[in-house]
Amino acid sequence: MSDLARAEQWMRLALEEARSAAAADEVPVGAVVVRDNQAIASAHDRKMELRDPTAHAELLALRQAADRLGDWRLDGCEIFVTLEPCAMCAGAILLARIEAVYFGADNVKFGAAGTRIDLFGDHGWNHRVRVVRGMLADECGRLLTDYFRAKRNAERD
Amino acid sequence: MSDLARAEQWMRLALEEARSAAAADEVPVGAVVVRDNQAIASAHDRKMELRDPTAHAELLALRQAADRLGDWRLDGCEIFVTLEPCAMCAGAILLARIEAVYFGADNVKFGAAGTRIDLFGDHGWNHRVRVVRGMLADECGRLLTDYFRAKRNAERD
Repeated sequence: MSDLARAEQWMRLALEEARSAAAADEVPVGAVVVRDNQAIASAHDRKMELRDPTAHAELLALRQAADRLGDWRLDGCEIFVTLEPCAMCAGAILLARIEAVYFGADNVKFGAAGTRIDLFGDHGWNHRVRVVRGMLADECGRLLTDYFRAKRNAERD
Repeated sequence: MSDLARAEQWMRLALEEARSAAAADEVPVGAVVVRDNQAIASAHDRKMELRDPTAHAELLALRQAADRLGDWRLDGCEIFVTLEPCAMCAGAILLARIEAVYFGADNVKFGAAGTRIDLFGDHGWNHRVRVVRGMLADECGRLLTDYFRAKRNAERD
């Protein structure tokens, strides 16, 4: 399997997480942490369920991965997320020493990986993260568009 | 009591949290969330203990406050933290709709409230946070300096 096909396979797992979020009436964003070609954590947004403003897919997946590895340093790990990380999540990815971030849809309002601000740019942090943007972007974005359209329509009923 | 004296009182509580962190061999940073002139959450860094890269004082205090209020929105809340928030924590403060951040020492390496970057500046987010910097800064900073000096000396022994 090519590296791209392998990476897309992880993004498809993140998409499955995002679909679970939509089914639970959470914002459909999913994230998967991968090390040595194995998924070691996967999560979706649970802000409403947990009543926790920090319960974004990425933050939950990072915490799950650290718990599994027994180490706050996620050396050698990559994260796949269906939506461009916000500032909180980009910051957490840096703190956890993640090697690479693959994301799907651009986050037009809150994107912190280049769209609104770029926390992964050259700020002189003590760690650099490789960023791959736009992976399965249409599919990732469509889930979000459909979710918010359905919410708006429900509010009108 | 003047507003300043009242605010300093909360920062002193955050300093107590920071001292508990140092005693537990964690980076001495403490945070307190206040609403209606009552402390509803307080925490210190627990990254080593919890093996969690996201276990900064602010993030833990925000989650604790949301849990206590039963709502991810921390409307009407202020946070007092002994060190300028990093990008993750500044992002979380924005997401939680905190009204104001009071911080002590500047975070020279990772400060995201003006020192390295300014996430609370005009980025067109959907929420604005009022920032008060430098409260009891010397005392807050000294705790950190002493902690890192002791660590360096211990490494030399």
